[in-house]
Amino acid sequence: MTRRELHLNLFVYPGGHHEAAWRHHASDPGQILDIGFYQDLARRAEAAAFDAVFFADGPALADNVRYASRFRLEPFTWLSAIAAATERIGLIATASTTYTEPYNLARLFASLDHLSRGRAGWNIVTTGAPQAARNFGLDAHPVHAERYDRAREFVDVVTRLWDSWEDEALVADQKTGLFADTDRIHAVDHSGPHLTVYGPLNIPRTPQGRPVYVQAGSSEDGRAFAGRYAEAVFTAHQTLGSAQDFYADIKARAATLGRDPSKVLVLPGISPFIGSTEAEARALYDEFNELTQPEYSLQQLHRILGVRLTEEQLDGPVPRELIETGGERGNGSRFQVILDIIDREQPTVRGLLHRLAGARGHRVIAGTPEQVADQLQEWYEHGAADGFNIMPPWLPGGFDLFADHVVPILRERGLFRSSYTGTTLREHYGLARPDSQYASPRA
Amino acid sequence: MTRRELHLNLFVYPGGHHEAAWRHHASDPGQILDIGFYQDLARRAEAAAFDAVFFADGPALADNVRYASRFRLEPFTWLSAIAAATERIGLIATASTTYTEPYNLARLFASLDHLSRGRAGWNIVTTGAPQAARNFGLDAHPVHAERYDRAREFVDVVTRLWDSWEDEALVADQKTGLFADTDRIHAVDHSGPHLTVYGPLNIPRTPQGRPVYVQAGSSEDGRAFAGRYAEAVFTAHQTLGSAQDFYADIKARAATLGRDPSKVLVLPGISPFIGSTEAEARALYDEFNELTQPEYSLQQLHRILGVRLTEEQLDGPVPRELIETGGERGNGSRFQVILDIIDREQPTVRGLLHRLAGARGHRVIAGTPEQVADQLQEWYEHGAADGFNIMPPWLPGGFDLFADHVVPILRERGLFRSSYTGTTLREHYGLARPDSQYASPRA
Repeated sequence: MTRRELHLNLFVYPGGHHEAAWRHHASDPGQILDIGFYQDLARRAEAAAFDAVFFADGPALADNVRYASRFRLEPFTWLSAIAAATERIGLIATASTTYTEPYNLARLFASLDHLSRGRAGWNIVTTGAPQAARNFGLDAHPVHAERYDRAREFVDVVTRLWDSWEDEALVADQKTGLFADTDRIHAVDHSGPHLTVYGPLNIPRTPQGRPVYVQAGSSEDGRAFAGRYAEAVFTAHQTLGSAQDFYADIKARAATLGRDPSKVLVLPGISPFIGSTEAEARALYDEFNELTQPEYSLQQLHRILGVRLTEEQLDGPVPRELIETGGERGNGSRFQVILDIIDREQPTVRGLLHRLAGARGHRVIAGTPEQVADQLQEWYEHGAADGFNIMPPWLPGGFDLFADHVVPILRERGLFRSSYTGTTLREHYGLARPDSQYASPRA
Repeated sequence: MTRRELHLNLFVYPGGHHEAAWRHHASDPGQILDIGFYQDLARRAEAAAFDAVFFADGPALADNVRYASRFRLEPFTWLSAIAAATERIGLIATASTTYTEPYNLARLFASLDHLSRGRAGWNIVTTGAPQAARNFGLDAHPVHAERYDRAREFVDVVTRLWDSWEDEALVADQKTGLFADTDRIHAVDHSGPHLTVYGPLNIPRTPQGRPVYVQAGSSEDGRAFAGRYAEAVFTAHQTLGSAQDFYADIKARAATLGRDPSKVLVLPGISPFIGSTEAEARALYDEFNELTQPEYSLQQLHRILGVRLTEEQLDGPVPRELIETGGERGNGSRFQVILDIIDREQPTVRGLLHRLAGARGHRVIAGTPEQVADQLQEWYEHGAADGFNIMPPWLPGGFDLFADHVVPILRERGLFRSSYTGTTLREHYGLARPDSQYASPRA
């Protein structure tokens, strides 16, 4: 039996996750578009034996790019160049089921999986940003339920495309002249309410068969989707209790559908500020928060809560009632995370903005390496996490502190690998390689 | 004044361009999905100071993959990994205006141009393959004229997306907190018959401003499109006269539209079989042709001519009348190339199939290095070409022979560079970097 070990991803965000990271003297904004910077970062994560690097994405420009590094690196191109500079670390790309064509998306992932020799993962998202719809010929974005409806159909279709070449279909026998056994290449022939795709894919089956399926929505639709499809789930929690509830819920949903719950990894986001003393770590955290720009932070809050607060309200209490009743919410599950913070900590508006500046509702830990390791271990050992999505406040230093000081402690405690045992992301995550659904039964 | 020099691209095709290349003992079919193989090949082309590597593409599986390596490597991922293994060589990706969304495509190219530091080129195609339509929810592919209509609108829209960030928009001033000057980021706000895109792009302007625009259709619609948009044109010609006519036509079309004809490079495809004697080169050529499979070759002919010939007809004359009147043609301009071969050479059906096996209607030259160089020089100096798209019959040997034996002769004759003078594809091709159309007039 394999020993259970926690999993660690590096969630890469241009400039770092803290909204003011790019302004800090430890950051070099001249490098935010330099692929070499990201290749180096991935090499460091690989040297630390991390499971994967992960890139978020979205098909629109954020309104508030005036104040923060909120442009988007395109994940397929960026991760392909990173694949070329690394050998083992997984490569997880976010891609939308709302605004891409399944045939195109299936090809991008198949190709990424081939060129990385089996390291691709797909963070499956639906796109809700209203700006995105207007970039794709729509006046308004599809409603939540309809987006998930398309997402399910989309995943079923691309799965069949990835399966459309059986593993044995590529023969390439120089002597007989048989390049591909077309009896083992299958039309998908899908025609559904949202999508019509005939297939087959024009790329042979990949090292992993399919990319690892990752999911990050925590709404009711999102959880149902995760229970059915996800092999890893990214999620945001501030407290052990909330993370435990979510963890139990996802595992139960998977089990109900006949899946092995241990093959659905729950990975909360953690943004660590690390110092040699707790005071030093807190001072560092404050240093970043002092660089925030209230106009930006208020826009971010509005994006999540649908309520517009003003600079005049910064030093007053958070108007809880207004928040609970007002506005259309951009992100339902994140809304609850923020309400909980308000109830638990009773912050001023400025205090709340600072609480969210680090990681947009994900958990920020400021402490010594031991304290950070303790927190991770607690969640890991108490049914709240199978591992973590590490969200460095700034790059590369915020990651280096974690890799150099927290990772060794996790290893000493027997919680994290000291080197890779496999070569594919499925192997890092302990997931089996799926057979093609078209595969002939084995003798 | 810069001396005129010819341009050379390496057109990469899995296995090589000869339809039976993968069967030849010089090929290793085990490498056709190995990114390392293609990275090595690009490094060789870079060592030879080639302008670019070029990947074709299409969003469907060819019917006849049973007999030949006719799957598709996805160009954006593949070229991004190649970018990471090279420093100077251009990277030209084929991408369809028929079956992609402009916002997604604009992001892929912007990102490729950033990560390659200005080496991206876009081979702009419309997709006519009937199998493709069925992968994108359509029963039949759009008619030719409508596809070009959408293509024009598409190019105009993505051009504006690439221009939507002025060069000075990215400020990233840590002190003032201004990340991007939003007065210099522009909505595209396009609403046309085929496309609605609001913008702006979510990626800052790229090193080249826009990828180099390449075009490869030689139909009337294709030529009109090239005259208006193309900065490099790929084309297939068997004779000097045909290439000269095409060359003059493209340059005239560009001039009529007020463009500088020297900034529209015409690059015919050439597939060279090279031997130390002409007899050796011909023997090599025959060796490959003997590996062809008539069933495959007849399918290919049917794809181009719309006429289905049979194995019984292989050793008889080509039924010219049937070909001229029968069938729906897949590729109008290639049709004329083949009719000309039939008229000029009066081949048997098998002879015609062999003539097309090398490069699907592109010119095949079998000869000594001097003979090959002579042929290129003749076309280059007689108004038929500004350079060539080199299509090695097999890989990597077919390319190595050209790089090792023909390139030095071209250099001795002062026809080709011995090293790069620039770092971007625009610089290799002698093209200026375009200003953003939204740029404020310079003082």
